[in-house]
Amino acid sequence: MIRVGLVGASGYTGAELARILCNHPQVELTVATSRQYAGKPLAEVFPHLRGKVDLLCENVAVEALVDRADLFFLAVPHKTAMDLVPFFLEAGKKVVDLSADFRIHDASVYEAWYQPHSAAQYLAEAVYGLPELYRDKVSTARLVANPGCYPTSVILALAPLLKAGCIDPTTLVVDSKSGVSGAGRGANVGSLYCEMGEGFKAYKVGDHRHTPEIEQEISLMAGQEVVISFTPHLLPMSRGILSTIYAGLAAGHDEASIRKLYEDFYGQEEFVRLLPQGEYPATQFVRGSNCCDIGFKVDPRTGRIVVVSAIDNLVKGAAGQAVQNMNLLCGLPEGEGLAQAPLFP
Amino acid sequence: MIRVGLVGASGYTGAELARILCNHPQVELTVATSRQYAGKPLAEVFPHLRGKVDLLCENVAVEALVDRADLFFLAVPHKTAMDLVPFFLEAGKKVVDLSADFRIHDASVYEAWYQPHSAAQYLAEAVYGLPELYRDKVSTARLVANPGCYPTSVILALAPLLKAGCIDPTTLVVDSKSGVSGAGRGANVGSLYCEMGEGFKAYKVGDHRHTPEIEQEISLMAGQEVVISFTPHLLPMSRGILSTIYAGLAAGHDEASIRKLYEDFYGQEEFVRLLPQGEYPATQFVRGSNCCDIGFKVDPRTGRIVVVSAIDNLVKGAAGQAVQNMNLLCGLPEGEGLAQAPLFP
Amino acid sequence: MIRVGLVGASGYTGAELARILCNHPQVELTVATSRQYAGKPLAEVFPHLRGKVDLLCENVAVEALVDRADLFFLAVPHKTAMDLVPFFLEAGKKVVDLSADFRIHDASVYEAWYQPHSAAQYLAEAVYGLPELYRDKVSTARLVANPGCYPTSVILALAPLLKAGCIDPTTLVVDSKSGVSGAGRGANVGSLYCEMGEGFKAYKVGDHRHTPEIEQEISLMAGQEVVISFTPHLLPMSRGILSTIYAGLAAGHDEASIRKLYEDFYGQEEFVRLLPQGEYPATQFVRGSNCCDIGFKVDPRTGRIVVVSAIDNLVKGAAGQAVQNMNLLCGLPEGEGLAQAPLFP
Amino acid sequence: MIRVGLVGASGYTGAELARILCNHPQVELTVATSRQYAGKPLAEVFPHLRGKVDLLCENVAVEALVDRADLFFLAVPHKTAMDLVPFFLEAGKKVVDLSADFRIHDASVYEAWYQPHSAAQYLAEAVYGLPELYRDKVSTARLVANPGCYPTSVILALAPLLKAGCIDPTTLVVDSKSGVSGAGRGANVGSLYCEMGEGFKAYKVGDHRHTPEIEQEISLMAGQEVVISFTPHLLPMSRGILSTIYAGLAAGHDEASIRKLYEDFYGQEEFVRLLPQGEYPATQFVRGSNCCDIGFKVDPRTGRIVVVSAIDNLVKGAAGQAVQNMNLLCGLPEGEGLAQAPLFP
Repeated sequence: MIRVGLVGASGYTGAELARILCNHPQVELTVATSRQYAGKPLAEVFPHLRGKVDLLCENVAVEALVDRADLFFLAVPHKTAMDLVPFFLEAGKKVVDLSADFRIHDASVYEAWYQPHSAAQYLAEAVYGLPELYRDKVSTARLVANPGCYPTSVILALAPLLKAGCIDPTTLVVDSKSGVSGAGRGANVGSLYCEMGEGFKAYKVGDHRHTPEIEQEISLMAGQEVVISFTPHLLPMSRGILSTIYAGLAAGHDEASIRKLYEDFYGQEEFVRLLPQGEYPATQFVRGSNCCDIGFKVDPRTGRIVVVSAIDNLVKGAAGQAVQNMNLLCGLPEGEGLAQAPLFP
Repeated sequence: MIRVGLVGASGYTGAELARILCNHPQVELTVATSRQYAGKPLAEVFPHLRGKVDLLCENVAVEALVDRADLFFLAVPHKTAMDLVPFFLEAGKKVVDLSADFRIHDASVYEAWYQPHSAAQYLAEAVYGLPELYRDKVSTARLVANPGCYPTSVILALAPLLKAGCIDPTTLVVDSKSGVSGAGRGANVGSLYCEMGEGFKAYKVGDHRHTPEIEQEISLMAGQEVVISFTPHLLPMSRGILSTIYAGLAAGHDEASIRKLYEDFYGQEEFVRLLPQGEYPATQFVRGSNCCDIGFKVDPRTGRIVVVSAIDNLVKGAAGQAVQNMNLLCGLPEGEGLAQAPLFP
Repeated sequence: MIRVGLVGASGYTGAELARILCNHPQVELTVATSRQYAGKPLAEVFPHLRGKVDLLCENVAVEALVDRADLFFLAVPHKTAMDLVPFFLEAGKKVVDLSADFRIHDASVYEAWYQPHSAAQYLAEAVYGLPELYRDKVSTARLVANPGCYPTSVILALAPLLKAGCIDPTTLVVDSKSGVSGAGRGANVGSLYCEMGEGFKAYKVGDHRHTPEIEQEISLMAGQEVVISFTPHLLPMSRGILSTIYAGLAAGHDEASIRKLYEDFYGQEEFVRLLPQGEYPATQFVRGSNCCDIGFKVDPRTGRIVVVSAIDNLVKGAAGQAVQNMNLLCGLPEGEGLAQAPLFP
Repeated sequence: MIRVGLVGASGYTGAELARILCNHPQVELTVATSRQYAGKPLAEVFPHLRGKVDLLCENVAVEALVDRADLFFLAVPHKTAMDLVPFFLEAGKKVVDLSADFRIHDASVYEAWYQPHSAAQYLAEAVYGLPELYRDKVSTARLVANPGCYPTSVILALAPLLKAGCIDPTTLVVDSKSGVSGAGRGANVGSLYCEMGEGFKAYKVGDHRHTPEIEQEISLMAGQEVVISFTPHLLPMSRGILSTIYAGLAAGHDEASIRKLYEDFYGQEEFVRLLPQGEYPATQFVRGSNCCDIGFKVDPRTGRIVVVSAIDNLVKGAAGQAVQNMNLLCGLPEGEGLAQAPLFP
């Protein structure tokens, strides 16, 4: 049994990690921290875990807890993560960091969108934990930067097209929609049921911090600096992200050739499901699972391709992908503990 | 009192017309038809109207009902509308047709997206009933083609930009999201609560029949043939449409100059609300009202403008706009019966 | 024009008062207070009111604002209300208090369920503002205690039965379900979208503070001290209360005799709608309106009657009823400004 | 591997069985029938199962499929089930029937609430499949009548009280609320998103067919004929049932003694979770799991006890309990394949 610790257990991502890990056959969750709920059973903070997880929340006293696990998940806000990562690494632990702190390779880009970076010396070795793209690097890493939820949905959708050079990256428009759990469990008026229910809105148009993360990965695949239009929206539901992505298609491509690209790229992937022509993803069909569903439309009228992808933002967009990375880091089968089918309806 | 008849009362649009009209001070609803519910009180089909509307649904026997109203709303499916319109016009009645049948000026375009047109001789005189653009024409018309819900949200958002020539229409990407009421009240598995709840999907990507309607109006304003990428999506909520629209911005424009364009264009409009910089529309803030909220972002990073608009698809996107057109047709104040503030939460 | 002031404009009840009043033909809203948002336009706090309400929120400085209105609505928490009421009354103003502070006639009962009462000298003159029961008293009052949302739904459902003595009040079980707006606009984790969405729960079983209010009114009608079982629940929706009420039926009553009782009692009421046999209320059919829908089932198998009532908790359960009371207090037609049909879907 | 067949795969219960079974380590799903979708992959009917279930729907040709499985789940409507059960039993197969056809021991009671029974000769041997009450009988049965969703929530809540004789069964009031998936996947207007969303209603008050099923089990435990008031309601959500149950408490009982009763009764149960004093179940904390959460309030003011229980209607209320019964029937660990923690949010 691999012993794992969960730092930041009281958010939705923390709870989702606990949910997945408590059914993982080769892992024991040994530590769960939460400043706010220290001393309280995690199953009291999250009553769905009653009878499933038997841990007390404890304060983040790293010295006291570091020896009780082999690998740590950090489900804490950015800035907090960069303060903790060096300690765990220097103690010889593996870390899957779910914050944004080690996703951006270039410290100056990070600092332009976030704040000063106090642990930039670890950026070079941090592996961007999208297993479908960086499986080998993850396997040998000690620090994995777990991707953001929006970026996961966008990068997986675009990778085959960009690597094959069949879209014009200067034309990329990314219109993404997320369930409210992406806004976290903070007590904000804006996240109240009555503010979000039966409603839909755009926010941070052109300003969202996931933009540089998406652009970094897209630029790497495109072999050129890419700037995208990225608009996030909030859906009146808890879980799920759907991204609709538009790009000019290079000459000589059609539905069949594009389909072959996707099939070659993702045919062997356990968690990516390519939909048949004329069908498009729906978040309700990936809910609670680690699946990423992808569909596309080649539109000769406009010369564009429209790619649509759907994930559960808390699973493939956060906790599930983190466990997938943990499996790789620990030499376990990549899908261990993640086979569960989506929950519908 | 103007006597109005409602042909097709048993869909959501019909019910919404009845709801608005029963509070309209200068109108009497005298006829409501529904094949399916003929003989049943409309307030039994729609219990929210109990005590508010006191009409029996009757069969669509046009000869028997034509004399009982001065103006008819047609809230029937396309194809059915084109069969009815000639009769009402020839009987000297005014018609607001909420179907698609008279929105497309060019019969061949209509026929390419819908089916053969049996009343194409009326296309030339039909006025596209977007009062903010065609107020004068509506006032003197006898046949108004009430715009589609998606097109209303898109055309209003783009009109000031296109008329001023400050965007490149070849770059237009329109990503729209609608509440489920847009799919109608038909008993389809796809519209069940459990299929739509807590879920979000794209559909008819690049194929939706509102595409030619949007392109017609945009082309007229742009002064050139425009082809757009249009992707509709279904939201887990009943009412509301939000459209997020992307276009390359011509050189020399910035937030201030664009804002002035919008203010000049819509400053006197009762139902268009321009949001301040950094704020974007949300469907929950227009629900139940005839408002169209518009916000935008000029993004120098990408050279694009992103415009976001929100309407209630059943009000400004259908029944409310139809009443606005009726007011114009009948010489009433344009906003009569439509002043009600949005219902939030 | 009657000038009215709104003390406590930043909660959902305050916003709903503003929404209703801005369409009221004989009223001008002249004051809106909010400590939290002082200096901000109310239409910025609640963007649905943009273009409809043109008032700045101001601090609750009673001396400064008392002369600017003839009647004040207090939409503030209990305890705060009792501090303000004496001032407004002594200044010669009429008050509709939406808090609980003046609903309970017996100060000791109030103090047992709430906290010490600092203005108990006004309890005797405060009129419990349920117009269907106390219309005459309201008309001549200067202080109206606007009923609670749950109590409104329960008392209206039971009044005809209790006054006729045809149920056994010792057997009363009241099972009520409310939308989340009843919990207010406070930033609490428990009211977040993700906590409430797709979920349903009971709370404060047997302990809710609306219990003594219901019991007071029921006891008055029954002519004996009545104790009830009252269980509130939270629904995954914003607006609406549905109460399901069980009581042993006295011998000699059947569906027909009970129906006659209800018809006699409510036949002339503008806002109470009695449903036909076999039909039961649904909150979606009263949403946004001042209606109270009532249905019942006489069940010979059990000897019980089951009464079901539905209201919009923010309208008939709060702001709408308050305006109904205002109309009575000011000699206006009781339904003025409240005729709007429910919004469905 | 045990081979199991699923008759009636195209409803929500059928899909949920497929979802659970595809992760069950000791079971192979070999047959899935659906008249409506015969010839279509089940994963096309239910896209969430894509990549998880690789079976074609086939017609219900019992002779052709009977040899391909050892046990059959019948997820078909009542009436259809009674036509199929004899065939499977006579072929030596075990059957878990999820319809109502074999739940009622007394054919005349069944026929009074449903329709004539054509296989009443099997009623005597059918075991009511509530494992917490009838575990031993289920283990040796060949025909298990899987309980209804409402009855599961009610009977589990009441069993300890009734067996201990500490409530007065003549006072029982059961107020239950269900998610819309309980209404099935039929294409009915009443189940549309727009009809159910943001709304709540009572239905079949005193008339629901689960009444005799609940009364049968309650009467057995009470040792006397019991008649209950039972009111079902529909919640604006897909999954979950919450039942609020009221009964007069016999003298001499208090919170502590009742708590001990529940702990003794359910302390060893894997799927029943007793909540601490002052906490009550919420459906969102059992979603997607086989858990039944129970909380209660002893109310000295009224002399009543209020018990609240929550289940996922599709899991513990249908497919999960069916798998639990299958495990017992097949000698597997009772919880095999059902350990998954609830999905929240």
